[in-house]
Parts: sequence; structure tokens; C-alpha cells
Amino acid sequence: MASALRNSAKCGLGLLSQLSSSSRHGRVCVSPYLLSQQRNSSTSSKIKVDFDSNTGVATMYLQSPPVNSMSLDFLTEFSISLEKLEMDKSCRGLIITSSLPKVFSAGLDILEMYGKTPESCGVFWKAVQEMWLKLYGSNMVTIAAINGSSPAGGCLMSIACDYRIMAENPRYNIGLNETKLGIVAPFWFKDTMVNTVGPRTTELALELGLLYSAPEALKIGLVDQLVPEDQVLSTATQNMAKWLAIPDHARQLSKSMMRKPTIDKLVSNREPDIHNFVSFITKDSIQKSLRMYLEMLKKRKA
Amino acid sequence: MASALRNSAKCGLGLLSQLSSSSRHGRVCVSPYLLSQQRNSSTSSKIKVDFDSNTGVATMYLQSPPVNSMSLDFLTEFSISLEKLEMDKSCRGLIITSSLPKVFSAGLDILEMYGKTPESCGVFWKAVQEMWLKLYGSNMVTIAAINGSSPAGGCLMSIACDYRIMAENPRYNIGLNETKLGIVAPFWFKDTMVNTVGPRTTELALELGLLYSAPEALKIGLVDQLVPEDQVLSTATQNMAKWLAIPDHARQLSKSMMRKPTIDKLVSNREPDIHNFVSFITKDSIQKSLRMYLEMLKKRKA
Amino acid sequence: MASALRNSAKCGLGLLSQLSSSSRHGRVCVSPYLLSQQRNSSTSSKIKVDFDSNTGVATMYLQSPPVNSMSLDFLTEFSISLEKLEMDKSCRGLIITSSLPKVFSAGLDILEMYGKTPESCGVFWKAVQEMWLKLYGSNMVTIAAINGSSPAGGCLMSIACDYRIMAENPRYNIGLNETKLGIVAPFWFKDTMVNTVGPRTTELALELGLLYSAPEALKIGLVDQLVPEDQVLSTATQNMAKWLAIPDHARQLSKSMMRKPTIDKLVSNREPDIHNFVSFITKDSIQKSLRMYLEMLKKRKA
Repeated sequence: MASALRNSAKCGLGLLSQLSSSSRHGRVCVSPYLLSQQRNSSTSSKIKVDFDSNTGVATMYLQSPPVNSMSLDFLTEFSISLEKLEMDKSCRGLIITSSLPKVFSAGLDILEMYGKTPESCGVFWKAVQEMWLKLYGSNMVTIAAINGSSPAGGCLMSIACDYRIMAENPRYNIGLNETKLGIVAPFWFKDTMVNTVGPRTTELALELGLLYSAPEALKIGLVDQLVPEDQVLSTATQNMAKWLAIPDHARQLSKSMMRKPTIDKLVSNREPDIHNFVSFITKDSIQKSLRMYLEMLKKRKA
Repeated sequence: MASALRNSAKCGLGLLSQLSSSSRHGRVCVSPYLLSQQRNSSTSSKIKVDFDSNTGVATMYLQSPPVNSMSLDFLTEFSISLEKLEMDKSCRGLIITSSLPKVFSAGLDILEMYGKTPESCGVFWKAVQEMWLKLYGSNMVTIAAINGSSPAGGCLMSIACDYRIMAENPRYNIGLNETKLGIVAPFWFKDTMVNTVGPRTTELALELGLLYSAPEALKIGLVDQLVPEDQVLSTATQNMAKWLAIPDHARQLSKSMMRKPTIDKLVSNREPDIHNFVSFITKDSIQKSLRMYLEMLKKRKA
Repeated sequence: MASALRNSAKCGLGLLSQLSSSSRHGRVCVSPYLLSQQRNSSTSSKIKVDFDSNTGVATMYLQSPPVNSMSLDFLTEFSISLEKLEMDKSCRGLIITSSLPKVFSAGLDILEMYGKTPESCGVFWKAVQEMWLKLYGSNMVTIAAINGSSPAGGCLMSIACDYRIMAENPRYNIGLNETKLGIVAPFWFKDTMVNTVGPRTTELALELGLLYSAPEALKIGLVDQLVPEDQVLSTATQNMAKWLAIPDHARQLSKSMMRKPTIDKLVSNREPDIHNFVSFITKDSIQKSLRMYLEMLKKRKA
């Protein structure tokens, strides 16, 4: 049963009713912007990194069809790419965007959590932690160019950046909606959201598993700016220039002062957090919820 | 002197100038809504609980005239009723509202703090703690249907719920206005308010003992929604349905993640907190303030 | 080189491009309001204190031309004046304003940090700590009447007060803009700002070294009220009356409850904080930044 589902579905944790059409197509949209540039770039299967040595700005294109689900492979590639850029002194800024239509990222890949051994689940969760630790603590300026929906893990990746620009399309939404699926955002998802929109909005959002449309997300401060869909990336580039005008050293120390306490909480609790996740996700009741969700996705695709 | 005042006045801690008319009448307004329902209900003297087994939602009617002052008896009944519902697995949601006109609750009963022994004051304060601990930490969905003014302890009860719907009548107000009476909201009142409206709004509110009109309360986020007075309860019921569509287990864990640190602070400091309250409230200067306030209420009623 | 610069420039840490004209004049504007009052007042070289024994309200006029830079002398006078008022039981409220045109305070005096021995820098930093500790923890009601720009240390002094009224002139701005100069606001500047405008706004402000125009500052809650420039002081006086209507004891306890944890963090870390500042500010790279900034200011004055 599990393997049948795993062959038929490929979707993130976010509740992505609005993504059914893109799931059907599942093609990679290569931006003409990219093709017209002369830049150093390396392409891996799930993430494409484009580095402009003139500006010191790298752009990461999430390109894992159909919906940029965060699988173990995806997360591993992400963290390795991020670490390479972090070590490259000439790289000062990072823009993260999607190469796929309508979706930034659908969040964590359910197939990494369904019908898996506890060991596999633990390895997966460690990779989720790693993604967040590296991104939230990055010394680079990080801007999310959110050109599609961004539920659950997609939202986490977005709010781990320094700045968020979203397509003003009201059909795109963003939020930590795990609760609606019967699972729970861990404390460091929660902390990141509290640091972004405050405790009360976070409480409502997590208790109800709320997804916010782009205009709603702007209103509560979950994103910083809305622009027409075709200007998301160019606006990110313009904003980046403003950020890079600030002395790196002072900006990095200020960022660290704000984020270090939140990061330290996970760093000193990685093993217990993995343990909590594994014992929760491998419960029969949770596995049953995930199966029902996968079957619903399968039916929708049929 | 004390007993004369205690016989003449029956009022909560909130500064309730706007309640003088309801204080004069002091009659219980039994809602026609209630009378027309066929439900299991138990009536105690100060709180009526109505449980709808079809929806799994209980409604608590505060009905201690004239202004739902939170006396020791009131608080004890409240906590016992809440605990019974909490233990009943079929009860998933709780709506709290008032059966009295113009007031949700006037807050803590001054007569429990004026002219009493330190022992009595300590017993009373423990009951206030109990009310908050049980409500703020409830596993049920809790919605405050605030159909009248809600100062001081009334505000605390409201912000301990998951969601607040208030009558849009601008003459109704809500807030932690203890400071205006010369007393001080304890740290867990403060923490609950910070979790609701943030530190700066809380600082201003507590330093100045501010009461907010319903529209102002909406603006600062002290309540979540305003509706016409006759729709407060029906809107609460509609909202409850939305909350109960969320899987209980995930919602409860999310709620606990948000609230547990705040609850733990009081749990590990109950005795010192009681001691602080008792030594403060039994000071001559504070007793004098309370006497002047009671005399003012007495004159207003005359 | 250092001494040449120190003779030619006298300016605070804030990036005060908008202050070039007042820097050119550098004269003290004595308010006619002051001259027309019959009050007890003591004048020291950099700060004038005017105490109205009828109302119990003192007004501090910052009057260190050209831009109220916070030098060691300025800070020492400020703390001594504040302590005297604090000890005077008849003084219940304090209004802080500027006697100079266009500027409230330009912030910390760069000349106390440039070309100085580590010992001198440490003495200076201790005086900065002292100013904040005394003002943020004051038992008096403190209102900032911000009648001009207020960058960096000027912003810190403002947000350490209980309430902020700013001239609605959009050319005046306020903010912790240290990052733009290549230096970093310490944790207690950050904590004070988080307590005022929340974590996300603080993060953006500190990472980018943002200065907000008066209307922007109102919008994010960095100031509480805007009024026409000639009404800043009178509005502060009117507001003070409202604050003094609250019982002192309860207001002071509420204020302490909100601010004590933030104050305690610095109190228990004063020496490490001084050490951090000294080792940072005496770095060659930072000294070079400060020299370039001083040279820029010198050219602008020429």
C-alpha cells in the first residue's frame, strides 16, 4: 500500500488544493532571464545555482517538479549548495526562488515520512534541521523571491530569509499549516514565526493551521512586499543592492544578535527534537492520517 | 466599616463607571436563545453550563448579578465546571459568555480583598490562579463571547481563551485597568497580555491602567472580532465549528507549545505569587484605596 | 590626525546628512517658553533642568551645540541631573527635549571613540550604560518631546522613556542606524527596541541601519504621537498630566514588571559589555571607518 502510494504521489506536506493544475503538468519553467545572462552556474538535479560574480549575488532556483517537495535529496542539495556559497567570500547575497509555475515549495515531502523506518525518518528530520540552521544563520543577505504558493516547509524556508518578496497573486498562499494535516510544527518553526509576526498571530496560525493569501500575508507581516508576478525576481535583485550597501560585518553581527538565541535553542536540542519527531510521525494514528492525505492527493490527480 | 461596605456594595475590581445602571437593576437576563434549546444543562448559582452533545460544545453563562464579580465562590464554581468539561471526552469546545446585561465580568470581587485576613486573601488568590491556569491551559477550544464590558479579571478571563468575539458597542470596554485603582496586575496577567498584544501595548496599558472601547480593543488586537450585540453568541458558535474542524491532537499540541512556558512560570511560582499578593493587598495604604473605591461605588448606587 | 579631526568636528554617531545647516550655525536656541516662566531652574553647560514645583514635573533641555552629541561630559551631566530628580520626592515626571534647532540628539559623540585609549573608551561606554540604566528604570514618568532628528543614541534615549511625542516634520528622523556606520548596536539597545516595536521590525531596522521619518516612526510604533513642531512641548505637558493622574506606586510597579528583566540583563553583564565595546571600537578597521566618517563630516562643514 505504502509503495503504491509512493509511486503515485509526489507532493509536499502543505495542503495544496490550489496546486492541482501544476501537479498535472509538472514541467520545469526555465526563466528567459536566466538564459540571457552570462554567468557561472552549476546545475544539480533539484536545485540550480546561478552566481553573478559582478554583484556577488547568487540565485538558487528550486526546480524539483512538480511542486518542489523537500525530499531528503532536495534538502541535502540545498544545504550543500548553501554551504558552498557561504564559504565563498565573494558571495554576499542569496536570492531563493522557484523555477516551477505556481509554487515556491510545497514543503516537506510526505513520502519521506510515510511508511519509513524510524532511522530513515530521523535522517530526514536531521536534514530539515540542517536546512533551517544554515539558512536562518546565514552570513549572506538572504531574500526569498516567492513566486508561488509556499505552505509548511516552504513557509519555513521563506521566513528563515532576511526579506520576503511575494507575487501579489491572491491565489498564492503561505503559512505553517501543518496542524490541518494532523501534525505539529516543531518549536523552531514556531520560534521563527514568532520572530516574524509576533506571538498572537503565530498562536492563531498554528492552532488553526492557517494559510494566508499573498495580500493577507503582507498584512500580518509574514511577507514584506508584494509585486506583480513577473517582477518578483527583479525586485529581489533591486532590494539586494540596498542590503549590500550596508557594511557586511555590522549587518552580520546585528543579524546574529537577533537570531542566535533562537538558533542556539535547536543546536542544543537537536537529538531530542529528532527523537520527538520520529516517535510522533511513526505513530499508527499519524501514519493513517498521512495515508489518507496521500490517497486524497492521488484521487485529485486521477 | 468594612462590613457596612461589604453589605452595600457588590462589585468587581474593574473601574466600571459605565455599569452604574446595570448595578442599579442587578437582574439576570435569561437569554431566549437558552430557553428555546433542548439540551443537557446543569445550573449552579453563579455559572450555568449548557452542553450540546451533538456539537461537543459547552456554553458557560456567567450569571452572578449584578456584574459577575469574581468572588471566591464564583471562581470555585468556574474551575470545577471547567474541570468537569475538561474530563468529558465528548466536550471539545467551550464558549464563555454573560447572562447579565452590559457586562461580561467586572473582574475580581473587591470584597474578597477588603477587610479580610491574610489567610482569606491567600485562599482567594489561589482560586484566581486556578481559574487562569485551567482556562489558559485548556485542551478544549475556548471562545470568549464578550457581550458587555470586561475590565481587569474579566479581561484576563477573555485573553485566556483561544479567540475573542466582542459586541461592537463602543460603550463596552475591556482592559487590565488595575493600576488606576492603585493595585498591580501580577506577572501572569502581564504575560498573557504580552502574548496577546505584544510588549509595548502591554506596557502602555498597564502603566496607565487603560480600558479600551470595543473598537479600540479590536484595533490593538485585544479582541479578534466585533459583531452586533445580538450576534455575539451565534458568531461564537459559527467560529467554534471552524476550530473544531482542526484535528484536536495537533491543535492541542500547538496550543501547548505556545502557552506552556507562560503557564510553567506561574506553576513554579504559585506560593511566592500568593505571598506577594497577600502582603501587597493587606497593606494599610492599599486597604485605604480599596475602601475609598468601595465608598465611591456605594455613593453611585445611592 | 586624530586631534585635527577632533578639533574640526563635533558630531554624534547618527548619520546626520539632514543636519548640515544646523551644524554650520551651531547656536543655542533658547526657547521663549522658558524665558517667560518663573521657575526653579539650574543650568549646567550641556543640560538645563527646569523644575515646576506646582506640577511636580521637570523638563530637561539638551543644549550642547551644535547637535547634542552625547559626549562623556554630556552623559555624566545627564545621569547626575536625572539622579537628583529621582531622589527628589516632589518630582514625579520628566520631559526631555532639545533646545537646539532641528535635532533632538545626534547620538553618541564619535570623538569619544576615535583615537582614544581603551581605558577612555571603557569609561565612556560605562557612562552610556549609566544613562540608559537610569532612564529606562526611572521611577518618574518620562516623556521624550522629540523636536528634531534623533538617530542612534538619540533614539535610544527616546525609546528609554515611557512615551514619545515627535514633531510631525517628515525631514526629522529617528532610528538605531549604527549598522550603516559599520558599528553595531549592543544587545540592550536591541532589547529596548524589541520591547518598543517587536522583533521583526527591530531585525530589519538593525540589519539595514534604518532611519525612519517621523510619519514612518509613528506607523511602526517607534514614537507614539506626532504633533506640529511648535506643539511638541505643550503636548508633552498635557500628556504628563494624564500620566500623573495614575497612582505612582502602582504605575512604578507595573513599569518595573515590564522593564526589569531587560535592565537586569545589562546589570549582570556590564563589564563584559564594556569589554566587548572596547575591543570592537579599538579595532583598526573600525577606527578607519570612524575616521572616514569624521572626514566626511568635516568636508560637509567646509
